[in-house]
Amino acid sequence: MATIVQKFGGTSVGDTDKIKRVAKRIKQGMDEGHSVVTVVSAMGKSTDKLVELADEITDNPDPREMDMLLTTGEQVTISLVVMALKELGVDAVSLTGWQAGIVTEEVHQDARITDINTSTLEGHLNDGKAVLVAGFQGVSEDGNITTLGRGGSDTTAVALAAALEAESCSIFTDVTGVYTSDPRYVKKARQLGSISYDEMLELAHLGAGVLHPRAVEFAKNYNVKLVVRSSMENVEGTIVEEEATMEQNLTVRGLAFDKNVTKVTVERLPNHYDTMSNLFKLLAEEGINVDIIIQQMTADHGVNVSFSIDSGNLGKTLDLIHGAKETLCYSEVRHESSQSKVSIVGSGMISNPGVAADMFKVLAEEEVAIKMVSTSEIAVSAVVPEKDMIRASEALHTYFGLDEKEQEKIELAKQA
Amino acid sequence: MATIVQKFGGTSVGDTDKIKRVAKRIKQGMDEGHSVVTVVSAMGKSTDKLVELADEITDNPDPREMDMLLTTGEQVTISLVVMALKELGVDAVSLTGWQAGIVTEEVHQDARITDINTSTLEGHLNDGKAVLVAGFQGVSEDGNITTLGRGGSDTTAVALAAALEAESCSIFTDVTGVYTSDPRYVKKARQLGSISYDEMLELAHLGAGVLHPRAVEFAKNYNVKLVVRSSMENVEGTIVEEEATMEQNLTVRGLAFDKNVTKVTVERLPNHYDTMSNLFKLLAEEGINVDIIIQQMTADHGVNVSFSIDSGNLGKTLDLIHGAKETLCYSEVRHESSQSKVSIVGSGMISNPGVAADMFKVLAEEEVAIKMVSTSEIAVSAVVPEKDMIRASEALHTYFGLDEKEQEKIELAKQA
Repeated sequence: MATIVQKFGGTSVGDTDKIKRVAKRIKQGMDEGHSVVTVVSAMGKSTDKLVELADEITDNPDPREMDMLLTTGEQVTISLVVMALKELGVDAVSLTGWQAGIVTEEVHQDARITDINTSTLEGHLNDGKAVLVAGFQGVSEDGNITTLGRGGSDTTAVALAAALEAESCSIFTDVTGVYTSDPRYVKKARQLGSISYDEMLELAHLGAGVLHPRAVEFAKNYNVKLVVRSSMENVEGTIVEEEATMEQNLTVRGLAFDKNVTKVTVERLPNHYDTMSNLFKLLAEEGINVDIIIQQMTADHGVNVSFSIDSGNLGKTLDLIHGAKETLCYSEVRHESSQSKVSIVGSGMISNPGVAADMFKVLAEEEVAIKMVSTSEIAVSAVVPEKDMIRASEALHTYFGLDEKEQEKIELAKQA
Repeated sequence: MATIVQKFGGTSVGDTDKIKRVAKRIKQGMDEGHSVVTVVSAMGKSTDKLVELADEITDNPDPREMDMLLTTGEQVTISLVVMALKELGVDAVSLTGWQAGIVTEEVHQDARITDINTSTLEGHLNDGKAVLVAGFQGVSEDGNITTLGRGGSDTTAVALAAALEAESCSIFTDVTGVYTSDPRYVKKARQLGSISYDEMLELAHLGAGVLHPRAVEFAKNYNVKLVVRSSMENVEGTIVEEEATMEQNLTVRGLAFDKNVTKVTVERLPNHYDTMSNLFKLLAEEGINVDIIIQQMTADHGVNVSFSIDSGNLGKTLDLIHGAKETLCYSEVRHESSQSKVSIVGSGMISNPGVAADMFKVLAEEEVAIKMVSTSEIAVSAVVPEKDMIRASEALHTYFGLDEKEQEKIELAKQA
């Protein structure tokens, strides 16, 4: 009897009716003859309510106590799902993080899993029970309750799938799978049948938001077959695995974009070995994330440095650079707001050197100005004006053959 | 440095402002040089909200999962109190039941504590930290989360005080201490300086409601000095200990009463060895609590049996007895509703045989009809019409010397 792991996020367990629906899903898996382990998050907005309570008490809550507080959310959900399963006549049992043997570093709010002792969990599976595990949480060697940080429940599910050598790990969410692009903006975006870990990682980092990068990394390292699928509709999802078998002919597998990008340029810095280090240490120390960086020599042997940041950090960034004018020794700092980043992703690029050139050609034909470019082995990103973002994305989506085809539309309709 | 244990109930931690007040109380104890262990309940109505969630899912929630669900309430409180303490500059740490080493039977919703492993707790105390422990909860040998049933947080506090050999265990509540009678009804009721475990037990069982009987029993067995005091006002409370030192001259220490009593009489049962057993097994199997029982022979060698129940159980009780008419072989069943029970309590009664007679005399003078009587070593209870309950109680309160004296009133006012 194969073991499967599945995870339902906060919106999928947002109220007791949704919890009953999750219980039915689990029963379905049991009826199909699987051993089912299910990881759930806290109900809908319940974590926000707990955070509000802490906010009423202090501006600076203790990290250990925040973990103590927030882990109650998932504990509530697991107990309610088990009650709903028993109501359906399914024997089931709930386990908190520590009961499920999820051991983490002695770190609060962003701990990494160091070990999973599956003996209790496997005992319950052998008794034929559905097992519910509280996501997002673990316990340190010293017996302190810890949490895994953002996307923690995804990580819990993937880690359990790895430890139990599960057949697959399904992430149930509010979309039906991974799309070639965000269907809210790119009308012809279509769902992918499969995608590789690396492609998913690039898309996750680029803001696709379906899966947390840490969970994808974990799945890649332990070769866990991930399935992203809808908790609302019973349709096929997207498989994330080492070799995405379908659509291998596609060079580009997905297209991501981010708004609220600002390009900052610091002009005529001294051409010195520690120039870059001094500039970016300044920003890093204040927690400002820098994305693309470009360095360019000037005619008079100075250096111009451009970088992109989230527009929300612009004020702080300018203050820091202005404040360090004497130590950095630059002539001027300029910025361009209202930019965006458009990225194409696909492992096929590795053996296809013309992809970046094709991307620039499409953008040129659309008369979209390219402000910055960055490339990785399986992705090319361009910073372009925000007003052109959707138009550029749709043109690239069509050019790289990602548009939904009529035949596929019919097939998806049949599945639904 | 003496260790003290204190417990704050749900109303004392009902919102974040009250939690901040509790933190100040704890700081006060620390500033006085004590090692302070504090047990807290779930915030105000939070347990009710969790029960509502379970009710939305099932009419028959699994006991293990109810424990999983409800124990989150206390976990929320401990983390918030620690945050509030850190805000006051006090180093503190929260522990769930299992982290505090509270081991119970493998029973859900009403487990008894079997062992307390205090090593983690003592480690934190030795580090000079205030320790917050989630009340009402423990863990079984098999690692399942359990709860201690009604009054569970009181029991947690007393058990920790016993295990830590604490100097005292203060139960902070919404009254200032234990009263000779319920001051909402008996105007001249006054607060007791001290009371013995046995007297407190009788009062607790008789519905005084300040302390749970199980906690008092635990305190008696392990000789833990209990102090009942107000969480709102900083005034002296009532000490519960083996030998109540003050007011030893009083034969009667307290007076309790319960409304909603119904007397049921089953007439002419056969005078057979299993008559009583059959009748009361019938009621016990349906969970109906019977209080006072009187058996009387009839002239024709039958038996009349009267017993008192909570009026809310009357319908069910009559149904059961009517349904078993053939097996019980009685002639008739009658009942008197709108009755009440008035009880006087005091360990001085043991050496004072006239107390019951005095009670009857007072009730006769007040022209109060006595329907049933029961006695224990340190208590006498009488079932009387509900309309006469307060009048009877006030007359007994005065007769047995329990009324507040002018001098005491002045002293209490000075303390406040």
